[in-house]
Amino acid sequence: MQTNQPGLTSPCYAVIFTSTRTDTDDGYAETAALMLELARSMPGFLGVDSAREEIGLTVSYWESLEAIRAWKEHPKHRAAQEHGRRKWYSSFTTRVCRVERVEMFP
Amino acid sequence: MQTNQPGLTSPCYAVIFTSTRTDTDDGYAETAALMLELARSMPGFLGVDSAREEIGLTVSYWESLEAIRAWKEHPKHRAAQEHGRRKWYSSFTTRVCRVERVEMFP
Repeated sequence: MQTNQPGLTSPCYAVIFTSTRTDTDDGYAETAALMLELARSMPGFLGVDSAREEIGLTVSYWESLEAIRAWKEHPKHRAAQEHGRRKWYSSFTTRVCRVERVEMFP
Repeated sequence: MQTNQPGLTSPCYAVIFTSTRTDTDDGYAETAALMLELARSMPGFLGVDSAREEIGLTVSYWESLEAIRAWKEHPKHRAAQEHGRRKWYSSFTTRVCRVERVEMFP
């Protein structure tokens, strides 16, 4: 899924989530789908792009740092983060960024 | 490939490149490999993560906006960008971001 708009016409923030999965599924796909649905329902959510090969990259876009904080602290998201640490990810890095410039083709 | 360090101990910038490929190969893989090698040789380059499924996501990390500009304007990279617009990508978005906060697990 590609979302081209975030940051083009007004400032926004990006959360870059880089992860390496374990071999454990145990509800991973279902939770990932639920978290995507939940993120879309959050105030200030602008879009998300995602791909996984050797590593996984998910970049979500948000109107403000406050929106990112509310998403990070949502109880269902916190529970998913805890599962992620315990079983789904061997490592991950989360980077919160301010989008400074956007260029699109075409 | 995962590079955990960028932004953890000192400020850095991220370039988020989100792309959709055409069906045309015609030197794509060779050029992508050459560009990766070239990026690694640039001053201020800190790391890169990449994955492609339906869309491609490549996030490169840099010490400064000047380093990003020099990479963008490198003659070999400019030639690759031109090929990209003409044959390899149906669409892409480039976002230059300032990394504000980094969290790692474990």
